[in-house]
Amino acid sequence: MFSEMFKTDEPIITSLLDVDFYKFPMGQMIQLLYPTIRATFGLTNRTKSVRLGDEICIEQVREELDYVRKNVAANKTELHYLRGTNEYQERMFREPYLEFLGKLQLPEYELRKRSDGQIHLEFPGLWAEDTYWETMGLAIVNELRNRSILEKMTRAERNNVFKTGRLRLEEKIKKLKERPGITFIEFGTRRRFCKKWQEYVIQRLMEELPATQFLGTSNTYFAMKYGLLAMGTSAHELPMVLAGVFDDGTCNAPQKATEQVLKDWWDLYGFGLSIALPDTFGTDFFLKIMKSEQAVNWKGSRQDSGDPFVYGDKHIEFYRRCGIDPLNKLIVFSDGLDIDRIFAIDDYFRGRIKGTNGWGTDLTNDLGILPLSLVVKTIRANGRGLVKLSDNLAKAIGEPEDVERYKRICGYTNTTYTTCRY
Amino acid sequence: MFSEMFKTDEPIITSLLDVDFYKFPMGQMIQLLYPTIRATFGLTNRTKSVRLGDEICIEQVREELDYVRKNVAANKTELHYLRGTNEYQERMFREPYLEFLGKLQLPEYELRKRSDGQIHLEFPGLWAEDTYWETMGLAIVNELRNRSILEKMTRAERNNVFKTGRLRLEEKIKKLKERPGITFIEFGTRRRFCKKWQEYVIQRLMEELPATQFLGTSNTYFAMKYGLLAMGTSAHELPMVLAGVFDDGTCNAPQKATEQVLKDWWDLYGFGLSIALPDTFGTDFFLKIMKSEQAVNWKGSRQDSGDPFVYGDKHIEFYRRCGIDPLNKLIVFSDGLDIDRIFAIDDYFRGRIKGTNGWGTDLTNDLGILPLSLVVKTIRANGRGLVKLSDNLAKAIGEPEDVERYKRICGYTNTTYTTCRY
Repeated sequence: MFSEMFKTDEPIITSLLDVDFYKFPMGQMIQLLYPTIRATFGLTNRTKSVRLGDEICIEQVREELDYVRKNVAANKTELHYLRGTNEYQERMFREPYLEFLGKLQLPEYELRKRSDGQIHLEFPGLWAEDTYWETMGLAIVNELRNRSILEKMTRAERNNVFKTGRLRLEEKIKKLKERPGITFIEFGTRRRFCKKWQEYVIQRLMEELPATQFLGTSNTYFAMKYGLLAMGTSAHELPMVLAGVFDDGTCNAPQKATEQVLKDWWDLYGFGLSIALPDTFGTDFFLKIMKSEQAVNWKGSRQDSGDPFVYGDKHIEFYRRCGIDPLNKLIVFSDGLDIDRIFAIDDYFRGRIKGTNGWGTDLTNDLGILPLSLVVKTIRANGRGLVKLSDNLAKAIGEPEDVERYKRICGYTNTTYTTCRY
Repeated sequence: MFSEMFKTDEPIITSLLDVDFYKFPMGQMIQLLYPTIRATFGLTNRTKSVRLGDEICIEQVREELDYVRKNVAANKTELHYLRGTNEYQERMFREPYLEFLGKLQLPEYELRKRSDGQIHLEFPGLWAEDTYWETMGLAIVNELRNRSILEKMTRAERNNVFKTGRLRLEEKIKKLKERPGITFIEFGTRRRFCKKWQEYVIQRLMEELPATQFLGTSNTYFAMKYGLLAMGTSAHELPMVLAGVFDDGTCNAPQKATEQVLKDWWDLYGFGLSIALPDTFGTDFFLKIMKSEQAVNWKGSRQDSGDPFVYGDKHIEFYRRCGIDPLNKLIVFSDGLDIDRIFAIDDYFRGRIKGTNGWGTDLTNDLGILPLSLVVKTIRANGRGLVKLSDNLAKAIGEPEDVERYKRICGYTNTTYTTCRY
């Protein structure tokens, strides 16, 4: 049964929708408002101990990426699906954007093995076109790495991997059934063990848990395939790229970018997708920028780095200062969750602020093989190096001097440095 | 490979979209404009020589129908798909209708074996709800009948059936490749040999023919599955039911119904779906009713009974009388087509009027087992018996005295009676 997950000759990415849903609202915003910005996404393996270039075959990566370039544009049904998305806003995706997706060919990439044993994988091009590479690149590299590990195993060892995965998944489901008040979204596309394993996980969750608990998936393709709600809002690339583009030395670029994203996003999507992502330049910085009227309007925010308890307490305090009952606001926790962390967060915040969980790596890649902490992030825009600080400096991105400059500009005082689990 | 088509334990209809696409624009019109009309659809086996009730197991029919009633409502993805339909008109399906489809449970049916060996299968209820039974009922009865024939065969005989089907299909494809100017739409859901055979046919057509020749399918589910264009407009049920409802003895009900359908349809869908179906009370009658301004606006018509050559000539003459160049108008031929007929029609009309072909039974049920001429038609509305005359009296529907009365009212003089091939 599980052998087909590993012994497959199908390409990994066969649909433009096999990306996180957030790529589409972001993609539309970029295509509409910033169609000429050039941005480069780059792969980083934060698990330095693993020499990725030695573990996987570069030519296989190339084959998968080329397949995407040649074959993956939105077909009629996928366009119907996106056009028919109305859970967040009527006619959220407009015709010019859908036409663009119907003709999209993803741009060229740069791929080679680096001398330090890592893989150099970068996606330069128009931001509006290369943004879709993010989760595809990650899913491809992750799946090829896992296949390569499985291929070196005996049959018994391989069976054991899937047995472990299955047992751990069933254990999670069992625990979730005991706490039906806890809700979550499957967020594991980028770090999935492999595509078919993610599908198996989604199927089991659908079979065992009610839609009031398993709210949906970030994977647009599986949402379409299984009639689930496709979920997701935005990522760090928006303020990162805009800060880079605005950064002409005459303005506070991080602040201008943060304000611009808040404005653009609300103008385009209104309440439906109003989940802020405050940690790009540090949550403290963001909470100084977000206005009280905005806080009133926006549904909530996503916690993606640093200490979730500190983050939540800060938001409760922030909302109170704005005269808002925190119980009307939502936090989507999405940073390195596992079931114990989900439970602990729920214990801590229940009755104080609404919460849900974007559960990624630990949900779709928990089979006993240590997942890599791989990311694909925007690293340059219009020739300028980009910066992300986040609430955990282990997740910071950018050249050291740029990071230091942004810390100064943003009044960043946080010193948390916690090695990422994933 | 073909054994799975026959040895399956899956229900036949697993999606509300596994119907002819025309059910949805018609369904929306009914739900919006005529939500309180009660109409009964009834099965008729025009192939009297086959005692259907002896050939198939009534309880299996019941099981399939019950499965549809219990399990088949539009899910989120199917609603996205319909909501995203924009090939004929922007936002063709409105939210109240989509909400209705999301909650729809098909109404009860009446099923029993009749003393003459035929099956009594009727679908009474609200027209807005039971209309979807039409093609589902047909597909179910046809597939169960074919399974029952296959089950009585030896393995070699069964293999021969699928071999015959495959050879005939490949022969059709070969001939079509020689005439790339001929276009067609797969119209074979209601009479398909079985669901999986229809899928196989669609897959082969997609593999072998360009989208400029194989234009799409009337099956909404397969259109969605394969990214094809879902095609279809309307059926006889619209004028038949309205004539029945208007038939109070004080008016020319067939004329009033014909005018009303022309108006309702144009008001709702405009140019996009403006293919008239003139033969309900005879094409001559229709052409006296359709106004010259309407003829200018409408895209064309569908020929579904009688002689296609006579029909086409009549339309060419009609358009000329209206001052319209027939070359700007389309006829969709859909009556008992096979490849020779398609070629002959093309030979006759090329350069005189535009034509395309809605190719049904002969395309999806040509495996050497004689297909039945089965129909499910509206037979009563608000308690009144309904009538269809058509351009071939072998296709007439209604109690003899009603048929005669309608012939008088409509000035019907046609005497064609050609036994239906299917």
